[in-house]
Amino acid sequence: MSALLESYAAGRWFRAAGDGAPLLDAATGEEVARISSRGLDVGAMVRHAREAGGPALRSLTFHERAALLKALAKHLVERKDELYALSVRTGATARDTMVDVDGGFGTLFSYASKGVRELPNDTVFLDGGLERLGKGGTFVGQHLYTSRPGVAVQINAFNFPVWGMLEKLAPAFLAGLPTIVKPASQTAYLTELAVRQIIASGILPEGTLQLVAGGAGALLDELTIQDSVAFTGSAHTAGILRRHPNVLDGGVVLGVEADSLNCSILGPDVRPEDPEFDLFVKGVVTEMTVKAGQKCTAIRRVLVPETVAGQVVEALAARLEKVAVGDPRDPDVRMGPLASLGQRDEVRKAVEALRSSAEVAFSGAAPADGERGAFMAPLVLRARSGAAEPHDVEPFGPVATVLAYDGVESAIALAARGRGSLVASLATHDPEVARSVVLGLAPWHGRVLVLDRDDAKESTGHGSPLPTLVHGGPGRAGGGEELGGVRGVLHHMQRTAVQGSPDQLTAITGRWTTGAARAQSDVHPFRKSLAELRVGDTIASARRTVSLADIDHFAEFTGDTFYAHTDAEAAARNPLFGGIVAHGYLVVSLAAGLFVDPAPGPVLANFGVDALRFLTPVKAGDAIDVTLTVKQITPRGGADYGEVRWDALVTNQDGQTVATYDVLTLVAKTWPGA
Amino acid sequence: MSALLESYAAGRWFRAAGDGAPLLDAATGEEVARISSRGLDVGAMVRHAREAGGPALRSLTFHERAALLKALAKHLVERKDELYALSVRTGATARDTMVDVDGGFGTLFSYASKGVRELPNDTVFLDGGLERLGKGGTFVGQHLYTSRPGVAVQINAFNFPVWGMLEKLAPAFLAGLPTIVKPASQTAYLTELAVRQIIASGILPEGTLQLVAGGAGALLDELTIQDSVAFTGSAHTAGILRRHPNVLDGGVVLGVEADSLNCSILGPDVRPEDPEFDLFVKGVVTEMTVKAGQKCTAIRRVLVPETVAGQVVEALAARLEKVAVGDPRDPDVRMGPLASLGQRDEVRKAVEALRSSAEVAFSGAAPADGERGAFMAPLVLRARSGAAEPHDVEPFGPVATVLAYDGVESAIALAARGRGSLVASLATHDPEVARSVVLGLAPWHGRVLVLDRDDAKESTGHGSPLPTLVHGGPGRAGGGEELGGVRGVLHHMQRTAVQGSPDQLTAITGRWTTGAARAQSDVHPFRKSLAELRVGDTIASARRTVSLADIDHFAEFTGDTFYAHTDAEAAARNPLFGGIVAHGYLVVSLAAGLFVDPAPGPVLANFGVDALRFLTPVKAGDAIDVTLTVKQITPRGGADYGEVRWDALVTNQDGQTVATYDVLTLVAKTWPGA
Repeated sequence: MSALLESYAAGRWFRAAGDGAPLLDAATGEEVARISSRGLDVGAMVRHAREAGGPALRSLTFHERAALLKALAKHLVERKDELYALSVRTGATARDTMVDVDGGFGTLFSYASKGVRELPNDTVFLDGGLERLGKGGTFVGQHLYTSRPGVAVQINAFNFPVWGMLEKLAPAFLAGLPTIVKPASQTAYLTELAVRQIIASGILPEGTLQLVAGGAGALLDELTIQDSVAFTGSAHTAGILRRHPNVLDGGVVLGVEADSLNCSILGPDVRPEDPEFDLFVKGVVTEMTVKAGQKCTAIRRVLVPETVAGQVVEALAARLEKVAVGDPRDPDVRMGPLASLGQRDEVRKAVEALRSSAEVAFSGAAPADGERGAFMAPLVLRARSGAAEPHDVEPFGPVATVLAYDGVESAIALAARGRGSLVASLATHDPEVARSVVLGLAPWHGRVLVLDRDDAKESTGHGSPLPTLVHGGPGRAGGGEELGGVRGVLHHMQRTAVQGSPDQLTAITGRWTTGAARAQSDVHPFRKSLAELRVGDTIASARRTVSLADIDHFAEFTGDTFYAHTDAEAAARNPLFGGIVAHGYLVVSLAAGLFVDPAPGPVLANFGVDALRFLTPVKAGDAIDVTLTVKQITPRGGADYGEVRWDALVTNQDGQTVATYDVLTLVAKTWPGA
Repeated sequence: MSALLESYAAGRWFRAAGDGAPLLDAATGEEVARISSRGLDVGAMVRHAREAGGPALRSLTFHERAALLKALAKHLVERKDELYALSVRTGATARDTMVDVDGGFGTLFSYASKGVRELPNDTVFLDGGLERLGKGGTFVGQHLYTSRPGVAVQINAFNFPVWGMLEKLAPAFLAGLPTIVKPASQTAYLTELAVRQIIASGILPEGTLQLVAGGAGALLDELTIQDSVAFTGSAHTAGILRRHPNVLDGGVVLGVEADSLNCSILGPDVRPEDPEFDLFVKGVVTEMTVKAGQKCTAIRRVLVPETVAGQVVEALAARLEKVAVGDPRDPDVRMGPLASLGQRDEVRKAVEALRSSAEVAFSGAAPADGERGAFMAPLVLRARSGAAEPHDVEPFGPVATVLAYDGVESAIALAARGRGSLVASLATHDPEVARSVVLGLAPWHGRVLVLDRDDAKESTGHGSPLPTLVHGGPGRAGGGEELGGVRGVLHHMQRTAVQGSPDQLTAITGRWTTGAARAQSDVHPFRKSLAELRVGDTIASARRTVSLADIDHFAEFTGDTFYAHTDAEAAARNPLFGGIVAHGYLVVSLAAGLFVDPAPGPVLANFGVDALRFLTPVKAGDAIDVTLTVKQITPRGGADYGEVRWDALVTNQDGQTVATYDVLTLVAKTWPGA
């Protein structure tokens, strides 16, 4: 008897009582492992996540969490051979394993990178700009996201035992939520191995990742309003989860990513001799055969212009004929078995249903001794006109149905009959076709791919969710949304509008808020290191008069002789200026001259400017000054400097606002004598 | 017998068969109107919205939709006396009516303004920046929001018959969704009047607003995955809606905003003699008495430090004693009746439940002849330590319970016992208290207000949702989110990740995408009017060498003598530059000199710069050039010019990117000879 998988619960590995149920190798039918969660205390797991994992995680900043994800990704990469070796038992070819294992690592790396670049080095995320709520500016509002003091439960499908866990773990972890993962039993041994590697590394704070190997028992009964469940799997199981009282009335947030009847559309502009024709056919074949078509994002419906439907079928058949199906241990094999004999039965049933309105256009070959392994040959169906089944019945295997359409509107309407899908793709090189089809498809899809000769080389393909793009879809696809970089992180957090005085908002957000107190001192803030600088530190400059000679000279020197700066008569006719005005670039250049402290010091560089707006023109004789205030301080992990964002406000002699912008500088963390 | 309210359905006013049910004046008990939807064809309404309203609305840009909302708001403002006159029958005082009626108009104006300022003059909204998906830059991704081809159904509470409709209509309308409104029967006559005013104006395209007066019948049965229901009301009714098959399995998006047990917290720093003490007490009294406490956002739980609980109760009593309760037609009356005798029964039942763990600390006076009108006196309860009921039982009337807390953590824990609320407020002048309490409250609330001496004068108060801030809350509050400016619009749209080549993304989004083709011609793009300019139009400049003399001179001229530009020895020690570099402002000034076309023409002004980043330092002897490409064209409605956003790319002699930024200009729509 093979080994019993263990759960990782409340800080230790838990072995269930009894023998558990066997999990079989998809290709050989041999037993790989056994599984049971009998006796597992899921309540203790939830408490452990709440009391240990959550607080530990939320004491770290986004950047610190990101650094742990990066360390974790590196740790796993070094151990990937172990995962590869075991992955073959799920029926995965080397290509399939790459999608699952390396895809998972890529997601960790991507989130590690996004976490540092797009989230602050803080625990609160500010959403959007300041809302001025009163004319006097004493009452303002700011949206912010905070971490929920809850638990992120993930319930995963069998097809991606590694990626499925990591793509949900990464955003939840960045968001400050501890995770409890419950993989599908069929391939749970691979998830268990990955979790063992993670726990052994000691990189993640204890309690931030726990594993349920086997049935989840009463896990959902333990959840309350700060908790969430992210489910990937069938629409049927999703329906059961939606009916749980804690979801219906208890405020548990449920996200669903369900199988959908994704389509790929061959544009009406594409002729068989165009490169897009071949790209389209290749794309369909790839989606039918990767993971033997067991992907939520696989192409189930192949929508083609009536006129070329026959040629498409021929081209598909020609490629599929060459696909060797068999044991993934055989290096010549291009497509492995389905995950189990039970899965194959399901697919066969779906094919039966589809055949009521479709004919078999191509059927490939599968190993004859396929009754121990869950082998299945690729199958192309061709639907009769008006067929309903292709839009309703999902064969979760290497099966696709070709449907003919007649015009762009009909293609969009057919796509929509899937009642909401994860992804659609379109092969076209015509920008008009791309615009009208993509915008027509968009409300029905979470992702749309346009394939043509220009992007084909770099395209990651129809079926690949990417960490930087949202993954999910409306309607039948579950209505959920995962990934999408920071979007996936924020889905785990609570957005709150905070109202108060600028001073209070500065205190709450840690970012200087327009209208808040400014701290002026004898020490120029450019003389302070990052450690010494405080939000609100300010330099109010002297005033400088801008002369006509300055404007003339700047025009000549820079070559920017735009008439509004050089030609009094023409400038007088400009409806916005009514006379010669200083260049905007002159204004900000002079402002820098006014605020800068020239001697070497902790301020290392100005690396950018954001949201510069010129609000009142500067005319000859006007005098300007600038107030520069520390708005935000962001230490960079692993560097000896950090970023300082300064609020810059240029005003004229009448107190009018001439320009507003943010100046971005790099400032040394410490500075001798500073 | 009073008049029967009519529904506005499929382009005409529909009168139900039969007499309908009577709706009674809240103060006098007299019949105001009758209501019935018997025989109403809700299926035809949904079809009408889908086939007439939706397409008409989606043929308009966001700016055009915003202009209609503004026109509508103006139209209604002129007719507000009619609404005011009828509003009194709901039991509303003048102050209450202002919240409902003027609050509704304010929401329309706010959305009209946000729609123009924060949404593009287009039908597609781009979300976030471009994601580079391949190293070569030929495969990129962009998130965008498109309008759902569906219907927005709103099911509203009785307490805000005007605001309740308009706050949901405005964002749905901007999003391109036709609305079907189903007001609560009790006050539906006021909603009906507002809808009559709107329909009579002819401002909204036919089919974009329909009204169900009376029961909604099988309305939800008609909805599918592109449709949404926004519900405001009790948690009980929300539970029924969540169980509808079209919500559970049919993909209908349900948003819920339910009554919640909102709290107001007196900070531990506040002494009775501080201004915040008085502000706090006033805030509680206001929330208890506006709309006679019939607000989802009203304060139900008053959390105060143990030490001052007695003083708080006294101060509340002193103010509440002066509140005259009675018929709102009486100008001396400060608080009207509840909406109906039935509502009063509900509140009395809730008070009974609350009294099991609380004593009556204050009870005001109500008119003795209050058995025809639904009058109720304000009531302050004081909970015993450890009481559970105040966190569970909601008295939807002028009732609040005082609870004592002991330390900041205990205040947060008590607030959280409400299991998710719409709003909390905190009176404090201590920034440390503000930060710790607000961040503790945030995951449990949709909105948090900090009240102190600085914002009190302009504060809109605890109970007022604002159009620019999100309204909703987790858990018991329903888990929904409305308003929040553009956030509320995007909730009605579908987010989709689009992948393709830069050229295809340019075609699809209408915005020039990095990597897409640039169109160079003999005509400088500054010579083209808005009507002639095309996305992708480009000027590639000549090259200019930057000399040490240029840098010296610029330093002297502007006064920006920062050592990195002036002191070779010190600059050599700078870890980022390793020698003298040109000022960033010099680079962009010279770039402008390179790309500008000086003669008078359609380009009127440069009004700003976005996202300027200096990527490679420019050293003496380096030669730079700039490529300026039209990225986005936004005509401004009602002006004879529009905005053009240009992509600016500065490179050096080695092809390295020196700087990237967006230049914002105003360009005349037409230009003679252009």
